[in-house]
Amino acid sequence: ASDHGMQTVTLIPGDGIGPEISTAVMRIFEAAQVPIQWDERNVTAIQGPGGNWMIPPNTKESMDRNKIGLKGPLKTPVAAGHPSMNLLLRKTFDLYANVRPCMSIEGYKTPYTDVDLVTIRENTEGEYSGIEHVIVDGVVQSIKLITEDASERIAKYAFEYAVNNQRSSVTAVHKANIMRMSDGLFLRKCREAAENYKDIKFTEMYLDTVCLNMVQDPTQFDVLVMPNLYGDILSDLCAGLIGGLGVTPSGNIGTNGVAIFESVHGTAPDIAGADLANPTALLLSAVMMLRHMGLHAHAQRIQTACFNTIQDKRVLTKDLGGNAKCSEFTAAICERVQDLD
Amino acid sequence: ASDHGMQTVTLIPGDGIGPEISTAVMRIFEAAQVPIQWDERNVTAIQGPGGNWMIPPNTKESMDRNKIGLKGPLKTPVAAGHPSMNLLLRKTFDLYANVRPCMSIEGYKTPYTDVDLVTIRENTEGEYSGIEHVIVDGVVQSIKLITEDASERIAKYAFEYAVNNQRSSVTAVHKANIMRMSDGLFLRKCREAAENYKDIKFTEMYLDTVCLNMVQDPTQFDVLVMPNLYGDILSDLCAGLIGGLGVTPSGNIGTNGVAIFESVHGTAPDIAGADLANPTALLLSAVMMLRHMGLHAHAQRIQTACFNTIQDKRVLTKDLGGNAKCSEFTAAICERVQDLD
Ligand SMILES: CC(C)[C@H](C(=O)O)[C@@H](O)C(=O)O
Ligand SMILES: CC(C)[C@H](C(=O)O)[C@@H](O)C(=O)O
Repeated sequence: ASDHGMQTVTLIPGDGIGPEISTAVMRIFEAAQVPIQWDERNVTAIQGPGGNWMIPPNTKESMDRNKIGLKGPLKTPVAAGHPSMNLLLRKTFDLYANVRPCMSIEGYKTPYTDVDLVTIRENTEGEYSGIEHVIVDGVVQSIKLITEDASERIAKYAFEYAVNNQRSSVTAVHKANIMRMSDGLFLRKCREAAENYKDIKFTEMYLDTVCLNMVQDPTQFDVLVMPNLYGDILSDLCAGLIGGLGVTPSGNIGTNGVAIFESVHGTAPDIAGADLANPTALLLSAVMMLRHMGLHAHAQRIQTACFNTIQDKRVLTKDLGGNAKCSEFTAAICERVQDLD
Repeated sequence: ASDHGMQTVTLIPGDGIGPEISTAVMRIFEAAQVPIQWDERNVTAIQGPGGNWMIPPNTKESMDRNKIGLKGPLKTPVAAGHPSMNLLLRKTFDLYANVRPCMSIEGYKTPYTDVDLVTIRENTEGEYSGIEHVIVDGVVQSIKLITEDASERIAKYAFEYAVNNQRSSVTAVHKANIMRMSDGLFLRKCREAAENYKDIKFTEMYLDTVCLNMVQDPTQFDVLVMPNLYGDILSDLCAGLIGGLGVTPSGNIGTNGVAIFESVHGTAPDIAGADLANPTALLLSAVMMLRHMGLHAHAQRIQTACFNTIQDKRVLTKDLGGNAKCSEFTAAICERVQDLD
């Protein structure tokens, strides 16, 4: 992996508008002369010999080889069918950290300005353990599983992220007043990690209090780290503050450099194929990917081109308040990328 | 219980600013000539013969007799000490529905206007079961317990509430895509209840989606019903939209007419006794109480007096942006109540 040679990235265009927005990203990367080539794969659900669900073996091989993936939206599994392929991907590659930066986009009006925070969500356990039982008729339990190892790993990741991204504080989000043992363990691991990062301010806050404070003044937050479900909730809440899932990037980070970056919006079947989709979320996810790969200059240039295009307001997709097609918006970004050369 | 005779209500002033704001409510009730007398009690933690924590027996007796309580804030239990008295109260009186109306207050500026929704939270089980285990060293589980009975009860309550309060829709908030059995059971009970209330529009939505939509446009929501933890989160989020816990009322509803209304903000020890507290949350909780008791005219008059005082902006406590004392703000409301006669 060098800044000069070509690196290969597994591209999973996904369903619905996925292919269009993937094409948009590829065009912009080409215009920006990013030294990346794509290895395109799909993740249709496959059933193994034992009946267990898995992702297609050649997609798995591609990811094992390339380590880095970029992924568009996948259709939600039907009730009777296979499990969520999003969850299966996280599991297959042990993508333990879900990272979602939320930054206000100048020129895109929301009730908030100057939001600049990052949610870091434990991505492998907690309320997503999948363990549930019927105890007796009419009584069901779901198990929230918290382990020392996973808590330690995500806590450490959050502080490392803060250090590497010039962030000054980490807030652990929890309900240890209610779930004393499980959230208590998570919180203890955060406190322990904090001991090793004396330059980063550490605070802890109840999830309900975070939600309340978040909608009152999101600028008080910086990096937030939390168990799985709380991250699911808070990352969406924060996306709402800056304009929704259409403009919010996401990265799923694993061990040994493995990572998948993805837009977390839906497949928008109603506009699929109509050249109306907004590629911003996938593009900003691809920008996160470039930073992860150390391609900082390319990342910055593409991000600036994207933000400037939005701020300029002349060529915008419908959801952003304009009436440009996806391809026109993409072309506008390509032009700016080249101007920034 | 008639509109004409005197009814007795158990008053638990609570800790910190609790006594001041309780006094404020009593003054306003007196000015409004509400036919209520108070039976003042406290809820210090008491340990029974078997070592189990309980609320003081004479407080329990008072509530058993009066059925209706009004409660100020209680100090948080210290780590090593007794359990949360708030939770113990909910448990002792089987207060299964936590109801929090969130309404924008004209003249009190927040990023949102026209918020007018109600969160209805299952208050007895779910993630608050208190059942946790260490499985092996470093692996902890917390159990989320969902029962058919409690789900059915809260679902029915939500629809009844909608009917009785001229509300047009109920949204069930869940993560049944992840917790298929537990949230699935909850959701099924909501769907079943919906069948019996054809005039109320029923929708279901993922918790993360609700959070995202809530901060983008809260006016789309009406009545929301959900399991315990989700309600804890969402009720605080919604309070944030309209100005925080200082202006948000809350009611805990049990069976056979039993109910405790409470302000859910903290005890504010830093300003306790200084005549600086804002009694609005407790006052609006008392207004909810009056409605629960059928004293609608009194409720409306006090609410109008409170809202008009805030809108008028001349006499406001510090947290509301003014510099009046608690007693001055209270006097201003009393005056208006009498003017509205
Ligand atoms: C698709 C769904 C299973 C997923 C989740 O609940 O984690 C989504 O909401 C997310 O945040 O990535
Ligand atoms: C005091 C605390 C135990 C409580 C809760 O978590 O339910 C509070 O946050 C609430 O919402 O009433």
